[in-house]
Amino acid sequence: MTNAAKPSLICVDWGGSNFRAFLLDDAGKPIDVIRSNQGMLSLSKEQFEPALLTQLQPWLTEHSLPIVMAGMVGSAQGWQDAGYVPCPANLSNLTADMTFVANARGLKIAIVPGVKGLSHIGQIEVMRGEEVQIIGAISLLQQQAQACVAADKTSLLMCLPGTHSKWANVNIEREPSIVSFSTYMTGELFNVLEEFSLLGKPYREHKQAVDSHLSAFDLGVKSAFTHASLSHTLFSARTNMLSGKISAIEVRSYLSGLLIGAEIADMQRHTPNLSDVCLVGSQSLCELYQRACHSLAIKVSIIDSDSASCSGMLSIVNQAGLCVN
Amino acid sequence: MTNAAKPSLICVDWGGSNFRAFLLDDAGKPIDVIRSNQGMLSLSKEQFEPALLTQLQPWLTEHSLPIVMAGMVGSAQGWQDAGYVPCPANLSNLTADMTFVANARGLKIAIVPGVKGLSHIGQIEVMRGEEVQIIGAISLLQQQAQACVAADKTSLLMCLPGTHSKWANVNIEREPSIVSFSTYMTGELFNVLEEFSLLGKPYREHKQAVDSHLSAFDLGVKSAFTHASLSHTLFSARTNMLSGKISAIEVRSYLSGLLIGAEIADMQRHTPNLSDVCLVGSQSLCELYQRACHSLAIKVSIIDSDSASCSGMLSIVNQAGLCVN
Repeated sequence: MTNAAKPSLICVDWGGSNFRAFLLDDAGKPIDVIRSNQGMLSLSKEQFEPALLTQLQPWLTEHSLPIVMAGMVGSAQGWQDAGYVPCPANLSNLTADMTFVANARGLKIAIVPGVKGLSHIGQIEVMRGEEVQIIGAISLLQQQAQACVAADKTSLLMCLPGTHSKWANVNIEREPSIVSFSTYMTGELFNVLEEFSLLGKPYREHKQAVDSHLSAFDLGVKSAFTHASLSHTLFSARTNMLSGKISAIEVRSYLSGLLIGAEIADMQRHTPNLSDVCLVGSQSLCELYQRACHSLAIKVSIIDSDSASCSGMLSIVNQAGLCVN
Repeated sequence: MTNAAKPSLICVDWGGSNFRAFLLDDAGKPIDVIRSNQGMLSLSKEQFEPALLTQLQPWLTEHSLPIVMAGMVGSAQGWQDAGYVPCPANLSNLTADMTFVANARGLKIAIVPGVKGLSHIGQIEVMRGEEVQIIGAISLLQQQAQACVAADKTSLLMCLPGTHSKWANVNIEREPSIVSFSTYMTGELFNVLEEFSLLGKPYREHKQAVDSHLSAFDLGVKSAFTHASLSHTLFSARTNMLSGKISAIEVRSYLSGLLIGAEIADMQRHTPNLSDVCLVGSQSLCELYQRACHSLAIKVSIIDSDSASCSGMLSIVNQAGLCVN
């Protein structure tokens, strides 16, 4: 291990279904990563500490590093309630409200608070974990001097696609802050419909179901642009198959296009002059969102969510003076 | 048994999940009813005929009556594909396209075709079973001289709430016909979200979950009127609970209001001057739809779905000359 790769921090995104940890050097570059499906929901309260230490053991045997966590771990149902910072929320607010967790090993374990705010229609909103990615993504965009953070821009629309997709309005005039955000249950709707609804039945019966069928995806996106209620448009996944417009194995991609399209079209309808968006997510998901955005003439820049998490966590610990180096 | 109650016809609504049969007298009045959960989806192709005869045996041992069926029984996955009549579809079209099923007992068994058409946004639409209820409900309304079929009315909007709710535009100038219709997957969405999503988790954990909480229902209806995408508004079922606006046991009613409200608000948005609707369904469901309709200043008349089925089936067999009396 060279000096450049000296471990400085462990950051953990611990959600309901997944556990994801990064060992970072002092420049915020990941040296190593641990992923598992040992989410909060699969564990009881007493299991949180041993589960964390067991998973991080390969790193902790060599180093005694600070651990910073975000996600469901900081919710009322998580390890310790880290509360919510109200919008507008910036790096200083998030750092100031970090919660420290007492633990048997005496490690420095901190949990970043979530953020609460209002959506574009005034609905109450909460996020946990995404706030770190947003802070990190802005930092990466600024480093990369991306077009969407050009000097004349004062705000930025960021989309974090996933189980509960978040669209955040970010003010980038001075210290970047999350002004408001809206959640779309796109991923969760897709999952429950895929697995349990009549719509998913045709492709549940096909082995090739996991393939992506882009023309069916595009057709689904187009259906979403009618702005009718999802409870109505969803049924077209059934009737387009019955009438032969899409095949049984294409229903999955159609449904994906319909749900992603509904999300983007809804944001566009509620955002005057929406011309560009920064996507923060996994490559495969961002590519689908990018495809749908292009159909609506929305320009896209993409930031990888792992990089955004690491960058955001490093910003927080640097601000808090938590790093060991 | 008096002459007035002489059995004349057996009508069956056989769907994916449920079986429902009525023994009717020659005035279309039900003498007896058989209900079970032996839907099409629980049976293999060879089991359809024995399942029907076993269930109807109490009636068939005494009488050899014609049997008229509607619902999934007439789909490609059902007993025999009865096809679809295109919109505009009227009583004559439905009767003319009835399919007769060969059977070992030599009984007269007919299946009413479904109807296909386009929704208010041009989406392909299909129905099976509801067409009989619509024909029957119009007949009942005309008998009852309801306000919504007053002499100056040429059309009527009918809503059949359920797993896949149908909203049908009916022309009542001469022979009533189904002009177009729109499906909303309200019931199915409610069921999968209730049982499998994060939203349903709080009340799945409560024993009192089945109670109806009308103030939470009303709040859900109100949330739906924002016309934002359901994938966004649904998340308010979570955040309104987290922020204490509704309790964990009220989430179910809130979700019900949100989904029913989205359906009605969407139809209202796409129907100029929508002032009244005829609901055809079970009493409990119609009462919830009525409550939501009143919030949108839409007047409601209600027809019981069993009565509508029986009335529609009698109209069809009378038109076809199938009755034994």
